[in-house]
Amino acid sequence: MRTLQVKLIETSYSIVVGRGLVEKLDRFLKRLGPARKVLVVTERRAASLHLARLEKGLRKGKVSYQVFFLQGGEGAKSAAELSRIYAALARNRFERRDILIAFGGGGVGDVAGFAAATYLRGLPLLQIGTTLLAQVDSSIGGKTGINLPEGKNLVGAFYQPSLVLSDVTLLKTLPRRELTASLAEVIKVGVIRDRELFQYVEKNLDSILAADLTALEHIVFSSARIKAGVVERDEKETRGERMILNYGHTFGHAFEAAQDYRGLRHGEAVALGMAAAARLSRNRGWLRPADEMRQNRLLERAGLPTHWNRLAFKEDRVIRHMLLDKKIKGGKLRFVLPTALGRVRIADDVTLSEVKKTLRELGGKQVP
Amino acid sequence: MRTLQVKLIETSYSIVVGRGLVEKLDRFLKRLGPARKVLVVTERRAASLHLARLEKGLRKGKVSYQVFFLQGGEGAKSAAELSRIYAALARNRFERRDILIAFGGGGVGDVAGFAAATYLRGLPLLQIGTTLLAQVDSSIGGKTGINLPEGKNLVGAFYQPSLVLSDVTLLKTLPRRELTASLAEVIKVGVIRDRELFQYVEKNLDSILAADLTALEHIVFSSARIKAGVVERDEKETRGERMILNYGHTFGHAFEAAQDYRGLRHGEAVALGMAAAARLSRNRGWLRPADEMRQNRLLERAGLPTHWNRLAFKEDRVIRHMLLDKKIKGGKLRFVLPTALGRVRIADDVTLSEVKKTLRELGGKQVP
Repeated sequence: MRTLQVKLIETSYSIVVGRGLVEKLDRFLKRLGPARKVLVVTERRAASLHLARLEKGLRKGKVSYQVFFLQGGEGAKSAAELSRIYAALARNRFERRDILIAFGGGGVGDVAGFAAATYLRGLPLLQIGTTLLAQVDSSIGGKTGINLPEGKNLVGAFYQPSLVLSDVTLLKTLPRRELTASLAEVIKVGVIRDRELFQYVEKNLDSILAADLTALEHIVFSSARIKAGVVERDEKETRGERMILNYGHTFGHAFEAAQDYRGLRHGEAVALGMAAAARLSRNRGWLRPADEMRQNRLLERAGLPTHWNRLAFKEDRVIRHMLLDKKIKGGKLRFVLPTALGRVRIADDVTLSEVKKTLRELGGKQVP
Repeated sequence: MRTLQVKLIETSYSIVVGRGLVEKLDRFLKRLGPARKVLVVTERRAASLHLARLEKGLRKGKVSYQVFFLQGGEGAKSAAELSRIYAALARNRFERRDILIAFGGGGVGDVAGFAAATYLRGLPLLQIGTTLLAQVDSSIGGKTGINLPEGKNLVGAFYQPSLVLSDVTLLKTLPRRELTASLAEVIKVGVIRDRELFQYVEKNLDSILAADLTALEHIVFSSARIKAGVVERDEKETRGERMILNYGHTFGHAFEAAQDYRGLRHGEAVALGMAAAARLSRNRGWLRPADEMRQNRLLERAGLPTHWNRLAFKEDRVIRHMLLDKKIKGGKLRFVLPTALGRVRIADDVTLSEVKKTLRELGGKQVP
């Protein structure tokens, strides 16, 4: 068990990475203060695989708890599901010290986190990610939110959890495609800030894909440490630093949106986005072709896409969604571009024609 | 024109109190950064009285603006109206630097403020209260939120405005009942923390009720100063200090809720709540009867209720709503109780039987 401390201006919290943490939930709940009630927000699949283990930990504690089931996937991040959580909290007369546990993947953490951020103007929030993506990325850093019909993540709040538990034994049951999709975020962390992590994934890819617990602990802890550091320096994305975490995401979100969030998983879209951003950077002469290739080769070995079928995206749909993205500043597009493995810079003068050129260049081959 | 600075941990902002501020809006907008778009959230009545003046100021600026009309009153503080604001922001492709102006009474400020808090995880917010209540209380301090069917203000966020403009000339057109209702919050500030303000209202009540601008400037500035100081010391209601602003509100909210938010105005409910809290305090031997009477006499002179018809509230409904209130801690009721004019303390050991006794004692006379 390894613990990281995230120190922020108004608060601080721990990220605990280890094995068998959920069965010891009672001990962790005690740290969060004198709660009397817990609402576990989860979805059917995570629950069917892991809820029994979580309940074992809950029953040992001195709290009453209820389990709330979201509709799975991105559909859960809707105003309608959010309202259902609020109603459950009101029905159970939650007070400000009572705890909300987000138990699931990134979508569950986002909507449950936003509910915790806004119900009674803030309940203690415990993030327990059941996917690699949640453990390495979304459960850390306090971004919470929901989608609107008009776009993804348009509504949300920065709201820090009181505690993050990343129990890597939960990842044992992950389907291969999901492990793979989440690896995109790990490789992303390597490319933006941690060359050693990148190399670790290169060397240990087989162990990771076989859900070897030692390898998983290493990549979860390393990714969490990098992300926590970035968040400490720029909690609310006001100083530019946090933006580097969006590497691959400006393209990635647009790809997801252009498919109405169907088809591509988030991590797959991010992988495509990383390939696109690397190409854009290479076209500017900022990134050596060898580094672009090395990034893409690792993504591909992990089973992630770096090219797409010309028919898979309509260019104008991708562009339109990009223009609705939060990362626009004054109409100019802003991108995080790699300059080496482990180093990125921010360009906020990217033109539409650079974007279009990139889209055309990466559309040549089939998606794996 | 007088300016107050509210200094918080992560941010700070100005409260400007004066005359003819809205016509100079262009100058104030410039202070808020490089916005290109403004959404004015307002409701029909405030708009019919004052929008032309605000638009005069807006047209002088270099921003494009749109006006969004909420349904008036507490009905505006709903998830449905909030969704309509989000849709307007998305439709107009608002970016993070674009500005939302809340232009209206407390309800408008609450829902528009919550939209600003959560759209793209936070847009710059300009609060321009058009009622005395908004100017002395709700536009300051960053409490934003909406009501749920299950209870008032159950969902919200602490989100500080970037600027508060309190133009007292907007108050000239206020109906008497509304001026009066808002005075409850001014008198509240006097009772909790500012004996001089209490005495000022006692001496200048006629000028205030005649909407004399000098008198209004004085009470708006004094109330804002006290509230800003409390908020500075306890921005997110975690240290107890901010709770003193809730004087009269635990009872008050329950009265409003017991009437389904119809009938009583917020300020009237607060006046009743102050009378109830003062009585509870007196019954504990904490407040001299002379001070209770002096408070109530001023409330009554201002046209505010301090007693109610026995038929007006069902005791069990009031109690039920109180138990759903955010200010419960561990099932015990928590109240802000006055110990003198200008001084309060917090009691978190109030029993249901004390509450019931108080309710019975104050139910003896007619509401004025």
